[in-house]
Amino acid sequence: MNSKINILRSDHLGEKPDQKNLVFGKTFTDHMFVMDYREDKGWHSPKIVPYGPLQAAPSMLSFHYGQAVFEGLKAYKTQDGRVLLFRPEKNMERLNKTNERLCIPTIDVNFCVKAIKQLVSMERDWIPDAPGTSLYIRPFIIATDTTLKLRPSTSYRFMIILSPVGNYYPQGINPVNIYVETELVRSVQGGTGFAKFSGNYAASMKAQAQAEENGYVQVLWLDGIERKYVEEVGSMNVFFKIGDKVLTPSLEGTILPGITRDSVIRIIKRWNIPVEERKISIQEVYKAHKEGLLKEAFGTGTAAVISPIGELNWKGNKITINNEKTGKIAKKLYNTITGIQTGKIQDDYGWITEI
Amino acid sequence: MNSKINILRSDHLGEKPDQKNLVFGKTFTDHMFVMDYREDKGWHSPKIVPYGPLQAAPSMLSFHYGQAVFEGLKAYKTQDGRVLLFRPEKNMERLNKTNERLCIPTIDVNFCVKAIKQLVSMERDWIPDAPGTSLYIRPFIIATDTTLKLRPSTSYRFMIILSPVGNYYPQGINPVNIYVETELVRSVQGGTGFAKFSGNYAASMKAQAQAEENGYVQVLWLDGIERKYVEEVGSMNVFFKIGDKVLTPSLEGTILPGITRDSVIRIIKRWNIPVEERKISIQEVYKAHKEGLLKEAFGTGTAAVISPIGELNWKGNKITINNEKTGKIAKKLYNTITGIQTGKIQDDYGWITEI
Repeated sequence: MNSKINILRSDHLGEKPDQKNLVFGKTFTDHMFVMDYREDKGWHSPKIVPYGPLQAAPSMLSFHYGQAVFEGLKAYKTQDGRVLLFRPEKNMERLNKTNERLCIPTIDVNFCVKAIKQLVSMERDWIPDAPGTSLYIRPFIIATDTTLKLRPSTSYRFMIILSPVGNYYPQGINPVNIYVETELVRSVQGGTGFAKFSGNYAASMKAQAQAEENGYVQVLWLDGIERKYVEEVGSMNVFFKIGDKVLTPSLEGTILPGITRDSVIRIIKRWNIPVEERKISIQEVYKAHKEGLLKEAFGTGTAAVISPIGELNWKGNKITINNEKTGKIAKKLYNTITGIQTGKIQDDYGWITEI
Repeated sequence: MNSKINILRSDHLGEKPDQKNLVFGKTFTDHMFVMDYREDKGWHSPKIVPYGPLQAAPSMLSFHYGQAVFEGLKAYKTQDGRVLLFRPEKNMERLNKTNERLCIPTIDVNFCVKAIKQLVSMERDWIPDAPGTSLYIRPFIIATDTTLKLRPSTSYRFMIILSPVGNYYPQGINPVNIYVETELVRSVQGGTGFAKFSGNYAASMKAQAQAEENGYVQVLWLDGIERKYVEEVGSMNVFFKIGDKVLTPSLEGTILPGITRDSVIRIIKRWNIPVEERKISIQEVYKAHKEGLLKEAFGTGTAAVISPIGELNWKGNKITINNEKTGKIAKKLYNTITGIQTGKIQDDYGWITEI
């Protein structure tokens, strides 16, 4: 797709929020990217327009049959004022895998990366530069047909919206306690667990709410068949350091193939630490703890980058990991990845795109 | 909730569509019911207003995290011009079970039935009266928070929209061929299969599309653990007549508790035909066919009422059921239920509510 992106500038530029009090995903920038799909025209009419509401028919297909998917990534401002993206093409490639599962037409990866760049470039004054802050980028697609017939929509809207976000760890990186969910499940083989599909997130809310009621920050999901194998933590991928190895669940169709997950694996391999992607039972994790071999556990994702796990509660059996302190590998990964993302550390991986 | 429903009448009444060419869910009536939820006010400000679009922020939570649920039922016009609803309280009770699973605040069942009645009553001229036609009623709830934080919305909109629908069987009730899906799954225990949750429908589209590509009308879903037990057919419940018994999968958390399903079970019991709700393996169905015991198979749902199955294809093994003709029980059930719904047959069950 070689379409030109038409630009309609906003007359009224919004006030930038205080960098010290940024709330995730609450304030949006002045403009957004919009592109529509119709069966006869394909994806067409890409444009950047003032941020604002859309007219949604009550019968809009995404309201009724849930055809809605998204991505999430960030733009970072370096100390010398450059703007960097972290592996944006990976997000657009994953969006296409998500689209295929949800019967949504695929997008042109290169064109959509270009759209992200152009939009972020226009909104560069919105990118905060205080330590740990960034500009969150949310590409998403919604089904826009207006009939109640149950079938894939024939029309879609792809949008990109931007929101300045604060430091995930204003008080410094800190381990959290995690409830191991043994009833509700996030996904099963043959389902949509590998896709960044809106419905996965709605379906996960109940377990999360129950965990919070019990004083836990997030849920550790187990597999949908045996409630035995570890899958994800909250909406992050999960890693364990057991003995000298780092373990993470293999991608078997139920787990989101996280871009931070992939980056962590590649970094750890460069550090010559053995990494295994395989099935990991919760029993294995507890056994390793008992034997003194469970050194670290942490989640990985775009929002937190690295989120150390301080405690696990599985059916009332509580274990503490690394004295509820951030482990060495977690800390080093956090510093390395955020360092690359913000231009403080040289990118030896080819992950950074400068805008 | 004893709120009064405020009414704002439309100035421009739409043209009623031709009763012979009604397309499901395409045309909507002049008015809709709207009610909002806020944490501090609960469900409030119920009103009937002209049918029209809503202003949806691009950051609307239902677009991103899929918190959207619905119901479906019909209003029927009798030959003498009365308007009947079929078990509407069951739909509103099920909506609350769906809400609980998706962290959406429950609604007042009686009040919402009242809202349906009042709206349908206002739109009674829209209810078609040709044989097999009806007014489809679509209550639904969408999450309306406008931040990207992943958590249950704190605000919601409940809406009811109405659409005149045609005869599901313009050429008479007719068996369809069904592809038994062995890879993709609809649901698993601990998931959302029992809920009328938008995401379930998006997740089911790919298997449906593949079945259609292979010349099949719908998919027969198997369980998410072993791909062994029969669950649903398309978006309907499924029944088999094997020998003298009628069998249907038991409700184990993965299957929608259909209101037509429940009605069918109760009717069959009155006919003194043994009904078993239990796990039914696809092997059992095929074995019964081999032994000449598989007499009938059919789906049940609001749209079709009864949808006979003429052929099954499981891993390339095709079997024909009842010579691809509509079975006796399917036919009798169809006539009985549609008869009760349209006032032609006396309702001995207490299922009909007259408006």
